[in-house]
Amino acid sequence: MAATNAAHAAHATSIDALVKEVTRVNGNADPEELTQLQEQLEQLRISDLIRIVERTNANRGAMVMRLLNRARFLAVFDALDPNHQADIVQALGSEATAEYFDQLGPEDRAQLLDELPAEIAEEMLLALDPDEKDATFTVLGYEKGTVGRYMSPEVPDIYPEYTVDEALTLLREIADEVETIYTLPVVEHDRKLVGVTSLKRLFTAQGSQTVGELIDDPVFAYATDDAEETVRWFLPLDLLAMPVVDESDRLVGMFTFDDAHDIQEREDSEDSARSGASEPLNRPYLSTPVLALVRSRIVWLAVLAVSALLTVQVLDTFESTLEKAVVLSLFIPLLTGTGGNTGNQAATTVTRSLALGDVRRRDIAQVMWREVRVGLVLGTALGVAGFLLAWAVYGLPIGIVIGSTLVLVCTMSATVGGAMPIIAKTVGADPAVFSNPFITTFCDAAGLIIYFLIAKSVLGL
Amino acid sequence: MAATNAAHAAHATSIDALVKEVTRVNGNADPEELTQLQEQLEQLRISDLIRIVERTNANRGAMVMRLLNRARFLAVFDALDPNHQADIVQALGSEATAEYFDQLGPEDRAQLLDELPAEIAEEMLLALDPDEKDATFTVLGYEKGTVGRYMSPEVPDIYPEYTVDEALTLLREIADEVETIYTLPVVEHDRKLVGVTSLKRLFTAQGSQTVGELIDDPVFAYATDDAEETVRWFLPLDLLAMPVVDESDRLVGMFTFDDAHDIQEREDSEDSARSGASEPLNRPYLSTPVLALVRSRIVWLAVLAVSALLTVQVLDTFESTLEKAVVLSLFIPLLTGTGGNTGNQAATTVTRSLALGDVRRRDIAQVMWREVRVGLVLGTALGVAGFLLAWAVYGLPIGIVIGSTLVLVCTMSATVGGAMPIIAKTVGADPAVFSNPFITTFCDAAGLIIYFLIAKSVLGL
Repeated sequence: MAATNAAHAAHATSIDALVKEVTRVNGNADPEELTQLQEQLEQLRISDLIRIVERTNANRGAMVMRLLNRARFLAVFDALDPNHQADIVQALGSEATAEYFDQLGPEDRAQLLDELPAEIAEEMLLALDPDEKDATFTVLGYEKGTVGRYMSPEVPDIYPEYTVDEALTLLREIADEVETIYTLPVVEHDRKLVGVTSLKRLFTAQGSQTVGELIDDPVFAYATDDAEETVRWFLPLDLLAMPVVDESDRLVGMFTFDDAHDIQEREDSEDSARSGASEPLNRPYLSTPVLALVRSRIVWLAVLAVSALLTVQVLDTFESTLEKAVVLSLFIPLLTGTGGNTGNQAATTVTRSLALGDVRRRDIAQVMWREVRVGLVLGTALGVAGFLLAWAVYGLPIGIVIGSTLVLVCTMSATVGGAMPIIAKTVGADPAVFSNPFITTFCDAAGLIIYFLIAKSVLGL
Repeated sequence: MAATNAAHAAHATSIDALVKEVTRVNGNADPEELTQLQEQLEQLRISDLIRIVERTNANRGAMVMRLLNRARFLAVFDALDPNHQADIVQALGSEATAEYFDQLGPEDRAQLLDELPAEIAEEMLLALDPDEKDATFTVLGYEKGTVGRYMSPEVPDIYPEYTVDEALTLLREIADEVETIYTLPVVEHDRKLVGVTSLKRLFTAQGSQTVGELIDDPVFAYATDDAEETVRWFLPLDLLAMPVVDESDRLVGMFTFDDAHDIQEREDSEDSARSGASEPLNRPYLSTPVLALVRSRIVWLAVLAVSALLTVQVLDTFESTLEKAVVLSLFIPLLTGTGGNTGNQAATTVTRSLALGDVRRRDIAQVMWREVRVGLVLGTALGVAGFLLAWAVYGLPIGIVIGSTLVLVCTMSATVGGAMPIIAKTVGADPAVFSNPFITTFCDAAGLIIYFLIAKSVLGL
């Protein structure tokens, strides 16, 4: 292992040196050096090339890509996020990238077009081969966020009355024109979907059997279905692809595992960013300009700071209590912190469960009832410990205040933390947004009120 | 859309009713009612059945699964997490599940075995068909967390000198015995991997061509490679499968997209749980007992509460300052909250980038330099706003204290938040653990020190 890691590190360092070299040589444009660099780049695996481009800004990334041959350029380009692809297209110019644009799947092309400035998008669309243009427009015809937007409309026409031999002959001819020949939709002549078969199934059957004998009830989605929800049930089935139909059950495309995976990954990145109170970057961190990082954070930070003014307000209200017992202020960060942590724990768990489809909106009562109990157990455990510690150091009354505050704050925070993401989803907001940061702020303010009310009554202030 | 949602809701309600019915009838065991229920369950799609089992505890889930036919049982069982599978096996008994165990892929079986009590695991292994037993032991022979543990050792033997027709004939015979016939490793007679081809490629070639003419340089992994790191570069390539080799480059198995996806999803769930300061549940939320939820949270919560004692300590040190200017305590939650949020933003972004492989350990200096600048911009923006507000309400000196504290706290928090996940990774800890909660606690204590030092010097206390 140690030896492998060392080798890996050496390899990685040479890659960094290579990128610097590419940038330097591009500046000089010495043809000999360029050829040499090109040869070095040819030694690298595609996965390393992808990593190189993802770890540098778009201009440098474009310089590296310009040195790749056609097939490798396409393989790298294909693996980038649509946002990042758009940056590269703009860095290289639409003319230089037109030929690669033609090679993308219609669904990938549609997503790249969404990210390009209208002018460039139009130019690139105009230069497309008519068939590809049609396929792209089919995909663009569906709303953003629907399955239709992520499907490939390039599907074979296989009818149930075909013999296996007929079907295999057809597939051999059109193998390069359709999205996949491994998962095969079977349709009636009006394009109504009747079932699904696979190349494996046809390939191992008797040539004289009909396709109709070899089909299963299809797992399928409607083109207008929400893509994220569809991915949630599609991915656990471990299927390569499934047919997509319109509202009259007519086949319109195929939805494949790789697009499903991209959707899920983007959603996970979004959830992760939002639960940390920032907007998703939609491009790799190191290739994002510093000001774009600031933009992704400033709004949330400001909103949270403004809502934190609530805590100033609460404390202002209890200022006389604080003046009488300054010792109370010592526990403020501990109590608000513990409340925030308990709330975050619940919110994070529920947000993830919503994302995986394990929990749904109408489960809110069940979730809250679970969290009340979880919060009570957690609060009691911490409350007893807090009571004993505070009693020992600051005396019995403070011990009672701290202990009972912890019980109540934990119970409240867990319950609110569990409910918030579901409420957010119900009102159409992103559950992750309403999870951690907002819950922290809310629990801070509510926790302080609980704290001072208990303190006032116990200490008789 | 509205109509679809209503239909969906009605459908969902009837599913809940169905599960209740299954539980009730299982209690009664009236054969007629059972048959009726079985028929109702047969109407449901596999994805709905999976959802039913995932949303209920293992005992109830097992009751539902007992009513399914063999193929559907297997489809549902296959889609569950290994942990959840183990719960179901224990609920149904090892005898009842032995036949399904036989049908799992060797890699899925190995993971299920890891989750079962040793006794049951042994019983189930003993009952296995000898070939399947061998394949399972091959997988179990690799360390947990390596690619070998997730590969299928069931691969075809295809040699470069085979003609396409010979290869296709072989594949037709062994189609059901190997993991996949779509992505095909090609080996020498000593099993050294020479390349990869695909069924599509063979299928569209001339029958008299040799396989050797149709191979590409393989994308492959070593069986001892770290599975999570491998998945990071494998998934963006959108491949169905890739060969896995041993240290002498001999083919030992195939690694497929569905296992890759499971690994990634589990890692994302882990990151999400840890960034919310809890341990991953490894089973769906609603099927997790309340005490298991408590267990997943109590340790982190206690550790964080203990580290928050640091803030009590800090405030205790500055108690005399606080007594002289109680107004300072009003801003404690606002300042610590903002510091925590800034730190979280940076930590979440960097943790996600580490998970996606966009950032690596040796990028730490670059990341910190970016975060210093981001934090300074954010801090300046908030600091100016804070200065103006505090000046207006509490006078110029307090305005200066709040404004300059915000600038310093934001800069420090962003830098620490960006560095912590990378440091965690370097010392072999989970970056997500060291991200949000710990950073919040750290920023709270450090922020308070900054605050009171500034306050003391500005207010001359």
